[in-house]
Amino acid sequence: MSELSELSELAVAAEKLDAADELAGLRERFVLDDVVYLDGNSLGALPAHVPARVEDVVRRQWGELRIRSWEESGWWTAPERIGDRIAPLVGAAAGQIVVGDSTSVNVFKAVVAAVRMAGDGRDEILVDATTFPTDGYIAESAARLTGCELRPVTPAEVPSALGERTAAVLLNHVDYRTGRLHDLPALTAAVHAAGAYAVWDLCHSAGALPVGLDEHGVDLAVGCTYKYLNGGPGSPAYLYVRRDLQDRFDSPLPGWNSHAEPFGMRSAYAPAPGAVRGRVGTPDILSMLALEAALDVWDGVPVEAVRAKSLALTDFFLRCVGEYVPEGRVESLTPVAHAERGSQVALRCEDAGDVMKRLIERGVVGDFRAPDVLRFGFTPLYVGFADVERAARVLGGILA
Amino acid sequence: MSELSELSELAVAAEKLDAADELAGLRERFVLDDVVYLDGNSLGALPAHVPARVEDVVRRQWGELRIRSWEESGWWTAPERIGDRIAPLVGAAAGQIVVGDSTSVNVFKAVVAAVRMAGDGRDEILVDATTFPTDGYIAESAARLTGCELRPVTPAEVPSALGERTAAVLLNHVDYRTGRLHDLPALTAAVHAAGAYAVWDLCHSAGALPVGLDEHGVDLAVGCTYKYLNGGPGSPAYLYVRRDLQDRFDSPLPGWNSHAEPFGMRSAYAPAPGAVRGRVGTPDILSMLALEAALDVWDGVPVEAVRAKSLALTDFFLRCVGEYVPEGRVESLTPVAHAERGSQVALRCEDAGDVMKRLIERGVVGDFRAPDVLRFGFTPLYVGFADVERAARVLGGILA
Repeated sequence: MSELSELSELAVAAEKLDAADELAGLRERFVLDDVVYLDGNSLGALPAHVPARVEDVVRRQWGELRIRSWEESGWWTAPERIGDRIAPLVGAAAGQIVVGDSTSVNVFKAVVAAVRMAGDGRDEILVDATTFPTDGYIAESAARLTGCELRPVTPAEVPSALGERTAAVLLNHVDYRTGRLHDLPALTAAVHAAGAYAVWDLCHSAGALPVGLDEHGVDLAVGCTYKYLNGGPGSPAYLYVRRDLQDRFDSPLPGWNSHAEPFGMRSAYAPAPGAVRGRVGTPDILSMLALEAALDVWDGVPVEAVRAKSLALTDFFLRCVGEYVPEGRVESLTPVAHAERGSQVALRCEDAGDVMKRLIERGVVGDFRAPDVLRFGFTPLYVGFADVERAARVLGGILA
Repeated sequence: MSELSELSELAVAAEKLDAADELAGLRERFVLDDVVYLDGNSLGALPAHVPARVEDVVRRQWGELRIRSWEESGWWTAPERIGDRIAPLVGAAAGQIVVGDSTSVNVFKAVVAAVRMAGDGRDEILVDATTFPTDGYIAESAARLTGCELRPVTPAEVPSALGERTAAVLLNHVDYRTGRLHDLPALTAAVHAAGAYAVWDLCHSAGALPVGLDEHGVDLAVGCTYKYLNGGPGSPAYLYVRRDLQDRFDSPLPGWNSHAEPFGMRSAYAPAPGAVRGRVGTPDILSMLALEAALDVWDGVPVEAVRAKSLALTDFFLRCVGEYVPEGRVESLTPVAHAERGSQVALRCEDAGDVMKRLIERGVVGDFRAPDVLRFGFTPLYVGFADVERAARVLGGILA
């Protein structure tokens, strides 16, 4: 009886929270079913209006207008136009973001460009030792190609590791595994105090919480668009270069799209001014315009409200896990302090791979990260408190 | 009267050629209207079955299966699977091509990897001086990052320019401006005789003529898929690494998709064996699967038949231009010899930009390349001889 009444206590709490949720109506902007989808930090759900927009791009823009669409359908300017749509979500004024390529490729551009900005006297790149692997691999390649040394350190160690040799520091705003939110303002200030350049990876923060790129003076940033921005599988990433650094942005991938006069067909390279300088080759229009359409779901949605709901969701999930999951079966890797928490909860759990399979079978979709982590992402645009309660209850049942 | 009878003579010839064209039926595989579309060397036409396939990817694979599609819909393996679909079109056995990123990014991977294969003693990169600009810009960046010198030479000068310092040579199979087909077998052999590595850009040849990558021992090759392969606007490019060089392919963009164990989330990079090593970040699935669908139009179509028709089309176009266009108004930049001709005809013409505008207004779509070139591409899968006759006739009318 006590368990039953506890169940209903949390279920009642969820109901109240959902009723008071000013963002609850946004769920209707997405295609969802009765699965609890807590994997939007890996692949965002499909916004309901996107299929029709993609169909128009394929049938009319490509099929009927064909080559004319580069001008008439705005294909050519899509990378910077969509960059300007992302800008307010990460606290950037217009004209500083271009969309295109993968996150990995943009990390490469940003880190090499940062090293070049730092100049000859500096030959060390610091990288988050717990980073999503691709950032570390690409930073290592950037170091090798620019004659730098790569030094992996935890974000906490960055202030003491910074020095006269430091050229660039590559950090994650939110750790992909633990969900820990790093202190972007303080770390950026420390990097600047040492005369180095800060490159932030926003993959796990953009669309889930305020980033404040301009406000905090971030130098360069990259991020993907298929997680909290719901751009679709493998949708193109973006690159932010702070306005006053753009003239010094010296790209290691100076493709023709970044030329000052791309259709001049000149043999000598001359970089375009502005964010366009971050472009490389011909943009992948289908993926890019699906992303552009997907960004419509943000119309009228303040990032601050998203952040408030995100914290309420993760708070409630931790509470429900505490109630439903038997003592000692999971350990949260995600910080309790709001200032240190992104929009996911990571639970260390024995047999995590198997547990996640069983969760998915029972309609709760998170993901497994080797070796022992259950990862649950909370997308405030479409996840509600009843979802959260159900996910924790199902997890508790599996682990009982 | 003599002009009228000449008109009908060429029109009759076109009719006969179309009636005898064994590939004529392929036109029905595409969405076309009564425009004469001679810009398939810039953006291929839409294959008729692609919209439904893209819709399935968006609505079902993304919308319903969501994250499960990485396995269940074969998203994760798409780069190498689609590479294997392109392989027979360029004369490559399976397992040597991956699809992803832009052509520019793949040129970067290939040139840096070629320099690394060549080893320390070699510090010069030769590049086609008349190349499409992005190849030159990217080769320059690769040279700068690897401590090499970049030396632009015409393809004809390559044999005499090769030497002990040469690490890599970046060449275009077909010149984007003139339509000249370069001698891939002979130039590759010359590069090898000098102990260097050959990187071929196939953007303007793949899908229009046989390439024979394996047969001619090409080391590395790249190409786009939105021209003669009809993959859609900005569809992902591909990278070929000859099988016996794959273990030595040392990518400057070692993203997590190229790791031997990508989901192991290891901090140390270990490259995957095989073509997968050429991958970088998460593939842009919508664009990639549109390309996969588009490649179905090649079912049962031998590249040799495509080449034969291509040459017949460009021969006939040159003949019609000779008849319809007043003497001295245009000059063909495209070689007369079949062995030196790709699948386009480039005509130097005064006021070419304005002339192309008027052609397009009259339903003949080619493109203009600065400063003075009218460029007409002939896609044998959907361009017929009546189209060719009409294009030349309209051009003649404008220039009369």
